[in-house]
Amino acid sequence: MGGMPRWEPDAPARLRETALELFLERGYENVSAEQIAERAGLTRRTFFRYFSDKRDVLFAGSEGLPVAVHDAIRAAPSRLKPAEAVRTGAVAVAAQLEELLERSPRRQAVIASNPELRERESGKYDAVGAAISEALRERGAESADAVLLGRVGAALLRTSFEQWVAQPDAEPLADRVQSLTEHLGRLLA
Amino acid sequence: MGGMPRWEPDAPARLRETALELFLERGYENVSAEQIAERAGLTRRTFFRYFSDKRDVLFAGSEGLPVAVHDAIRAAPSRLKPAEAVRTGAVAVAAQLEELLERSPRRQAVIASNPELRERESGKYDAVGAAISEALRERGAESADAVLLGRVGAALLRTSFEQWVAQPDAEPLADRVQSLTEHLGRLLA
Repeated sequence: MGGMPRWEPDAPARLRETALELFLERGYENVSAEQIAERAGLTRRTFFRYFSDKRDVLFAGSEGLPVAVHDAIRAAPSRLKPAEAVRTGAVAVAAQLEELLERSPRRQAVIASNPELRERESGKYDAVGAAISEALRERGAESADAVLLGRVGAALLRTSFEQWVAQPDAEPLADRVQSLTEHLGRLLA
Repeated sequence: MGGMPRWEPDAPARLRETALELFLERGYENVSAEQIAERAGLTRRTFFRYFSDKRDVLFAGSEGLPVAVHDAIRAAPSRLKPAEAVRTGAVAVAAQLEELLERSPRRQAVIASNPELRERESGKYDAVGAAISEALRERGAESADAVLLGRVGAALLRTSFEQWVAQPDAEPLADRVQSLTEHLGRLLA
């Protein structure tokens, strides 16, 4: 079929953008991968070169988040206590997430609309929590503390991100992570 | 087909127990609802009277957990601050979860073996977090605090439960929830 595919350097970005448009217009359940490709002016084959299915369009790239969080916590000064290392690492990663702002409100609206997507999003933050735990264990933290701080750190990152997407002008995401972590300490004190 | 079904008062419990056995023997992916029913000495029809699919055997009943957590937090004394109300509610619910101990280690082993099940389990605790948030908002907490404490509360309940399942003789689950919450406060201080 079809001979050499044309090189489409911005195909993934176009497919992501088009998918968000269609999901919001028609509802996630009522959109197919084929329709996304067609609206983007690309072939079905091009779609499946970059994404495994329509859900993947919303989550591709997010497997990099746990890795980034893990590495940032490992890189935090070794004198820091576990909770401080998590905060330092999360703040460092937050600075890299600012570029997601443009797509995020629409992406979150789509995810909120579908139970399967909500589960997948939770699974994403579970992976972030597991990455935090692993980094803390590698830094010598007790295993039980590592698991708990992994989950709490993931909750802080997720909540910071959502608050920032809702009010991006209030403060940069990294500052939001820092302030929300301190706020949680006060709430639990 | 097949006339009046026999009344099988213990069918759900037998199906649950048999499903755990088969999942651990053969791997979750390699077991069908039909095989569970057959091993339990019940019909396919009986299986589907109680469960929608083989995954449901592992999660049926868990929809009650968010409701219980919500109601326990609403019932906490109104003078308590949000974080204290979460702890009080979680401790109250924990006392009702002790009966799950017998099945839980095997259930957790099955869930750890399969990505789809892990996502479903995360989704379960997401629902717990949402229920905590709702209860806190109904008690008058600020919305941002309610979301954050919902997620942190779910992380505390999940981690307490897992620690207790691994070491049930160390302390009752309710005490574990209380001590882990205090421990988190110290870690974040």
